[in-house]
Amino acid sequence: MTPNELRQQVRSGAFRLPTAGYCGPYAQANLVILPQAQAHDFLLFCQRNQRACPLLAVGEPGQWQLDSLGAGLDIRSDVPGYNIYRHGELAEQVHALHDLWRDDFVVFAIGCSFSFEQMLMDAGIRLRHVDQQRNVAMYRTNISNHAAGPFGGEMVVSMRPMKAADAIRAVQITSRYPAIHGAPVHLGDPRLIGVNNILQPDYGDAVEIMDDEIPVFWACGVTPQEAIRHARLPLVITHQPGYMLVTDVLNSSLAAF
Amino acid sequence: MTPNELRQQVRSGAFRLPTAGYCGPYAQANLVILPQAQAHDFLLFCQRNQRACPLLAVGEPGQWQLDSLGAGLDIRSDVPGYNIYRHGELAEQVHALHDLWRDDFVVFAIGCSFSFEQMLMDAGIRLRHVDQQRNVAMYRTNISNHAAGPFGGEMVVSMRPMKAADAIRAVQITSRYPAIHGAPVHLGDPRLIGVNNILQPDYGDAVEIMDDEIPVFWACGVTPQEAIRHARLPLVITHQPGYMLVTDVLNSSLAAF
Repeated sequence: MTPNELRQQVRSGAFRLPTAGYCGPYAQANLVILPQAQAHDFLLFCQRNQRACPLLAVGEPGQWQLDSLGAGLDIRSDVPGYNIYRHGELAEQVHALHDLWRDDFVVFAIGCSFSFEQMLMDAGIRLRHVDQQRNVAMYRTNISNHAAGPFGGEMVVSMRPMKAADAIRAVQITSRYPAIHGAPVHLGDPRLIGVNNILQPDYGDAVEIMDDEIPVFWACGVTPQEAIRHARLPLVITHQPGYMLVTDVLNSSLAAF
Repeated sequence: MTPNELRQQVRSGAFRLPTAGYCGPYAQANLVILPQAQAHDFLLFCQRNQRACPLLAVGEPGQWQLDSLGAGLDIRSDVPGYNIYRHGELAEQVHALHDLWRDDFVVFAIGCSFSFEQMLMDAGIRLRHVDQQRNVAMYRTNISNHAAGPFGGEMVVSMRPMKAADAIRAVQITSRYPAIHGAPVHLGDPRLIGVNNILQPDYGDAVEIMDDEIPVFWACGVTPQEAIRHARLPLVITHQPGYMLVTDVLNSSLAAF
C-alpha cells in the first residue's frame, strides 16, 4: 500500500488502526492543530525544543492541505483518530474534523520515532517492544523544556534497552535524522534524568532490561501533548497516540548527511 | 611551530619530549616498522582490525620517506623515540634508526587518539586525564583481534569517563573519523569486555569515574604493539608510546563526512 492509498482508506473510514508497521519507508507524523492566536507561541516552543518537537511542516492559517507531506492530503480526514482537547482535558475522540474545522486553525506536523525505529531494525538492531508487540516505554523526566508563551513543562522520553554496541550504532544512525528526534538525549542511569522507576513508564508498556544492556533515551513526540495539556487552552486537536499521519516523505530523504 | 619545524627539531636532537599537545590541528601517528617478510601479514592484520589499527600510510620496502604524511619527512629520524623489539622483547630504545635501517623495512603509520581528543576538547568536552595531566587509562580486553599470520591477541582499549550527554556527543564526533579509531567500541559496564578492575589499567594512569559518568571505550593504538610482542618476531621497530610521528595531515581532512 502506498501512503496515498492508505490515506484514501483512512479518509473513507475503511482503515481505523494504529499505523505502526504500515508504509515502512515513509515518515509518519505527530499532529498538532491550534488556533492562529496560539500558533506563534507553539511554533516558538517547537523551535526551542527541537529534539522533542522536530517540525516536518507547518500550514498557513485555515490550510488543511500540506502538499509538502503528500499530494492531495487532507488533514481533516487522513489521520485514523483525533484527540480533541478543551481547556487541557481530553474532551472527545473523533475520526474526522470537517465539523470542527476553522479558518484560523494552523497545522503542525512533527517527526515521529516510528521512522528511526525502522532504520534501527534495518541495521539489524532488535527492539524489544517491537519483538514483544508492546508500545514503547515512555517517561516524564526532570529535563525542563524551554518555555514559549503558555507552553512549557518537562521533556518526555522514549526508552529502548540495547547492548552497548547497538547503543553506539543507534547514536550514529539516529544522529543522521534530526527531523525525527535525532540522537539520544541520555543513556545509562535513568535517575540522572529524574526517572526513578524504570519498570513503571508514564506512557506505553514496560520492557525488561537485561544485565548486558543499558537503557537508551530519546526525546519523544508526546512532549508537545504534555505541554498542550499544561497550557489549558480552550481548544487543541492532536492525533491519537499511535494513529499517525502517514506522509509521502521518504525517511531516507530526511537524513542530514 | 609547524609539523615540519617540529620534525626538524626532532631530527637535530633538540626535541625529545612526548608530542601530546604539539601541533594540535595535525594528525599524529603510531609507528610500526617490519621486515618485508612479515609486512603482508601485518597489513592484513591492520585491515582486519581497522578500529584498533587504522592505517594512515604504508611505505614501499626500504622507503623512509612518506610524502603523503609530510614533505621531506624522514622516518629514520623524525620520531622523538623508538622502541626496538627483538623476539617480542623490548631490547633497546633509540633516537634514530640510521644504523638499523634495512632495504627491506616497511613503514606503517597508524592513526592516533590524540587527534580525536583534540576534537572532543574543541567541542567543550572535558577529558579528565588531560585535566589531571595523566596518561589515558588503557586496558586489555577479551575482544579477540582477527588474526593474520603471527599477529593476533586481544584488543587494547583506552577509556575516558564522561557524562551521558558528552558520551553521546563523543560517539557523533569520533564516528566522523574512522582513520583515528572512529566510534567507541563499548560504553558502560567494563566487565562486558573483560575489564574486571577499572581502577587498575594495564597501561597509562587510572582516573576517577564520577557517579554521574559512564566509562567510554575506544580501540587503542597499543593493540598492534601487543600483537607484535605476542608474534615474537626477530625484529620490529615502533615509536615509544607518547612519542609520536607528527604529520602534515590536518585532522579535519580525515573526516569521513
